[in-house]
Amino acid sequence: MHTTATSSPAVSTPSSEPAAAAHTLFPGSRRAYLQGSRPDLRVPVREVLLSPTRRPDGSETPNEPVTLSDTSGPWGDASFHGDATRGLPAVRAEWIRERGDVEETAGRAVQPLDDGYLSEKHRAQAEAEGRRNALKYFDRASRPVLRAKPGQRPTQLAYARAGIITPEMEFVALRENARLHQMRADGPRDSLFRQHPGAPLGAAIPREITPEFVRSEVARGRAIIPANINHPELEPMIIGRNFLVKINTNIGNSAVASSIDEEVEKMRWSVKWGGDTLMDLSTGKNIHQTREWILRNCPVPVGTVPIYQALEKVGGRPEALTWEIFRDTLVEQAEQGVDYFTIHAGVLLRYIPLTARRMTGIVSRGGSIMAKWCLHHHKENFLYTHWDEICDLMAAYDVSFSIGDGLRPGSIADANDDAQFGELKTQGELTRRAWERGVQVMCEGPGHVPLHMIPENMEKQLEWCHEAPFYTLGPLTTDIAPGYDHITSAIGAANIGWHGCAMLCYVTPKEHLGLPDRDDVRAGVIAYKIAAHAADLAKGHPAAQYRDNALSKARFEFRWEDQFNLGLDPERAREFHDATLPQESAKTAHFCSMCGPQFCSMRITDDIRRYADEKGLNTADALAAGLDEKAAEFRSAGGELYHAATP
Amino acid sequence: MHTTATSSPAVSTPSSEPAAAAHTLFPGSRRAYLQGSRPDLRVPVREVLLSPTRRPDGSETPNEPVTLSDTSGPWGDASFHGDATRGLPAVRAEWIRERGDVEETAGRAVQPLDDGYLSEKHRAQAEAEGRRNALKYFDRASRPVLRAKPGQRPTQLAYARAGIITPEMEFVALRENARLHQMRADGPRDSLFRQHPGAPLGAAIPREITPEFVRSEVARGRAIIPANINHPELEPMIIGRNFLVKINTNIGNSAVASSIDEEVEKMRWSVKWGGDTLMDLSTGKNIHQTREWILRNCPVPVGTVPIYQALEKVGGRPEALTWEIFRDTLVEQAEQGVDYFTIHAGVLLRYIPLTARRMTGIVSRGGSIMAKWCLHHHKENFLYTHWDEICDLMAAYDVSFSIGDGLRPGSIADANDDAQFGELKTQGELTRRAWERGVQVMCEGPGHVPLHMIPENMEKQLEWCHEAPFYTLGPLTTDIAPGYDHITSAIGAANIGWHGCAMLCYVTPKEHLGLPDRDDVRAGVIAYKIAAHAADLAKGHPAAQYRDNALSKARFEFRWEDQFNLGLDPERAREFHDATLPQESAKTAHFCSMCGPQFCSMRITDDIRRYADEKGLNTADALAAGLDEKAAEFRSAGGELYHAATP
Repeated sequence: MHTTATSSPAVSTPSSEPAAAAHTLFPGSRRAYLQGSRPDLRVPVREVLLSPTRRPDGSETPNEPVTLSDTSGPWGDASFHGDATRGLPAVRAEWIRERGDVEETAGRAVQPLDDGYLSEKHRAQAEAEGRRNALKYFDRASRPVLRAKPGQRPTQLAYARAGIITPEMEFVALRENARLHQMRADGPRDSLFRQHPGAPLGAAIPREITPEFVRSEVARGRAIIPANINHPELEPMIIGRNFLVKINTNIGNSAVASSIDEEVEKMRWSVKWGGDTLMDLSTGKNIHQTREWILRNCPVPVGTVPIYQALEKVGGRPEALTWEIFRDTLVEQAEQGVDYFTIHAGVLLRYIPLTARRMTGIVSRGGSIMAKWCLHHHKENFLYTHWDEICDLMAAYDVSFSIGDGLRPGSIADANDDAQFGELKTQGELTRRAWERGVQVMCEGPGHVPLHMIPENMEKQLEWCHEAPFYTLGPLTTDIAPGYDHITSAIGAANIGWHGCAMLCYVTPKEHLGLPDRDDVRAGVIAYKIAAHAADLAKGHPAAQYRDNALSKARFEFRWEDQFNLGLDPERAREFHDATLPQESAKTAHFCSMCGPQFCSMRITDDIRRYADEKGLNTADALAAGLDEKAAEFRSAGGELYHAATP
Repeated sequence: MHTTATSSPAVSTPSSEPAAAAHTLFPGSRRAYLQGSRPDLRVPVREVLLSPTRRPDGSETPNEPVTLSDTSGPWGDASFHGDATRGLPAVRAEWIRERGDVEETAGRAVQPLDDGYLSEKHRAQAEAEGRRNALKYFDRASRPVLRAKPGQRPTQLAYARAGIITPEMEFVALRENARLHQMRADGPRDSLFRQHPGAPLGAAIPREITPEFVRSEVARGRAIIPANINHPELEPMIIGRNFLVKINTNIGNSAVASSIDEEVEKMRWSVKWGGDTLMDLSTGKNIHQTREWILRNCPVPVGTVPIYQALEKVGGRPEALTWEIFRDTLVEQAEQGVDYFTIHAGVLLRYIPLTARRMTGIVSRGGSIMAKWCLHHHKENFLYTHWDEICDLMAAYDVSFSIGDGLRPGSIADANDDAQFGELKTQGELTRRAWERGVQVMCEGPGHVPLHMIPENMEKQLEWCHEAPFYTLGPLTTDIAPGYDHITSAIGAANIGWHGCAMLCYVTPKEHLGLPDRDDVRAGVIAYKIAAHAADLAKGHPAAQYRDNALSKARFEFRWEDQFNLGLDPERAREFHDATLPQESAKTAHFCSMCGPQFCSMRITDDIRRYADEKGLNTADALAAGLDEKAAEFRSAGGELYHAATP
């Protein structure tokens, strides 16, 4: 375990930036790496470079760079080649192989049907028409498929239980501590390290996240590290309530719109803004190819809902689904490297009629598919009846479960009802069984829940699902704002995150209305980064408040560029500032558009502080003791506390 | 007391709409009025007209219009003249005069300095240059100024204590019940009236808001009806924790940007989207004229921070402020009709040094002004020392207090500190003293507070301020998202609203960065309507869930236009939908872009529901008893539950 970090910023002169990477970079920032215990264990971070604090007397005090954890992978490194057709470096390749429990296999032959085509001819024809896709058909020949050796379960859960600290565990420990790094290096120095104690609701976050703590949480099932052995490009991350709250973004084409290029670009876009994991929910043509390109270029865990692709293979008819088709789809996706599967095995036959009197019935796509299959065949959900086989299959690749909540409420009216809670209990049973087979598990949750009914969701999930990480979609706290559901749901997400939810699935402004575009993805990710961070502050994550403090200090000191660059969206902040005060000089001015150049409350306070500092007026006692005299001095010194905005 | 309502929709054929009103109207809606006990007591509501529910067999069931409360005043009535230079009708004029406790006065002479000019010549010159303002200099000659007769206190608080139910009280009772109206008329009919019980935290909202309940809450000081006797255009509303959570919007020019026209237009814009009150925070030139035009055209209560204008009158130098200048400004604004004043009388000399070690010192503009004045003169805050005179002056016009929180935290780091809570205690003292003089009071609150520290704010305010309504700015739950503070703060606003906060001051995306434009006002208002409604659901307001239910039902039934029109922002919802599926036919289609025409989870559920209905499968028992047989029937009937999306 080595947590000493050395900063090795990449060269970032604009002229040397590959075009593809340029738009992924943030202004005023540079890529650095925290070095782990082995040469190939380097955790990427982003350092925000700050300008010095300027006092009115002209003196300057430098501000150290602020280290932020970074989800953008090589796309955030200016020295990266930036060529999507070459994919990302396989940073985990050695870690996986040197454990000696996996072997290369020929792998399942890719079928035209995997992409929605009936034949090679059909596919070729479609490809000929699809010239706008710059990404070619992926050549799998160059890429061996890995699978567990017979009898082996190469999962992070199995390693953790065996007491092994994997490089993945060390990686996530360093990553979780990215912001703490500065504090550890020198110890608390100033007010930047002030932190409210927080009110953890059931969580017990240590002062420092060690690799051993990571191991113990994974062994306990309270956290997962989704990391398929066929996704060596992955930079590991952890999902659990004693860690930073994570967010997931969804992308995916559909029968109606979107293309491979667009989906890969959306992936890069979402990891730039801070998406911790990514779900590919494609449902149209080219599902297999889209996923392949996403995986080869994606530094974060990729999740899917395999029943979506299986449904495409049977012409969109749920009743035509079979265990065999589904199982084959799991193998197909596991071999590609998908890190977690949403599987709606908790939608049991007996719960389905409980939805009949709902306001909005079943709104989960996976839930609806399985409900229709169950009713049509009058058989128990085949995902449930084949659960143990699914577990064994997933263990062979270390694919994690995201046990679906197919009966989640689709409206405020349906929140916390019998159908939802019935399924949640079954999710708990499935969790226990998956754990018995060494598979990592998280559980999905709602949905649409009014604010006061959110805590009950979290409490029941912790109890019934044995503290497996909870992963919720929002929840939306009202139904009356289509077009703004990133906000209705960010409110619920922040609350459930505080109560212990480990990952928040983002919702974009287009939810319920259409497919999200770039702007929507950005808006959704930022809303959810806000919710996750608000939750981290509330549960008292020891490193959470540092960024707030650094930004607030910059704000107070009129370091406009620093304020922009420390924010979640520097570009938007700068754009908004410049809409009122476009002049470059306004960004170094000691005032803002709200109060104008002649007056600013922050400037007055700055004066009060300096005055109190100089005169030793730091406490009420000091004031009571001698303010009369001090005020006289103040007046005799001119009493003018303003300083010219410009020299 | 008459709460029976008759709907009398205004003529709303597009051709007859005055141009000025057109942009204020919502699609698919019409203005109606709830008739009170007297002919001149008519409460405006908006009726959203719905399309019928279409079953796959072609049958249709009509859906009744949904009644929503409406803050847009005459601007939302298609028959209104729409001419800002003529102003709004004086709906309260008779109510005020017939109480017999006010008299006409000459009023204070308006000075050039009121608008920031040193002389008439200076003003004339500026006006000559300001040709882009369509609104001329307001002629006060036609408008008498009202003031209490000697010895009278014409405040809603005084009337309430005397057991008088004023027309204003009846008006707000009808208004609060706008959505309940439909439920009362016919009694519960279907699932639309389902309502979660909520978890009121200290609140005790009755099933029906009666005028007597309104009176008792006002008498107790737990609610206020801000309603200056010189603002007869006002349509009364109530602020208190046993009522719907309200939102305030801020507008105002500054030294840097903005004009009269822009501010009046922003006011119309903000009441269109649902702003319940409006604060004019102007600080540049033409403050008096801007406020006059806003008041004459504003159907909701208008608040100000009089110290802002007073500061302009002394050339922007806080230390030059005097009680006389401030008092004169209060008279000036009270005579114009301002409904509530923010007064930072709680910024006491002894609290100021408590801010010296803060991360961001004093961020309230009013707080900074008073702090500088106090330090410069080493005297106690003159707003505090003249409190009783201020109370008597405000009582003469029924101006309500919004006791400022000049020492609110400006960053997460500074939340809930000694300076903030010291001032809050003084706000409580000032509340008690204002009540003794018959003046209505609410108290302002923070600011920047992490999620877990919000409840303490509300609890202390209720205790120390004797349950006077709390009115908070957000609070923002993190500092790391400049450009998105409408979201960081909507999270805090929803939470504090649930805990009992009566009014939420909106925050726009431009907060901390620049002056909000139309888009920002809209984004801020919608985010806060969401927060307020989420809080209303959580605290169990009996009529809150109706709109969620109506919208969810429309969503489930693929009534796209109804879904748009029932939302907070129909235009944005439609625009987002059309971005993916622009064809008109898509808005009547039984599918959406997320899943495409071949599959939709909502359609499957609809099938399940119909199936369960037909077969009596409404309970788990029924399922256990006979699903085997039912499934056979289902298969033999073809097993195809889809219906063609188009006939």
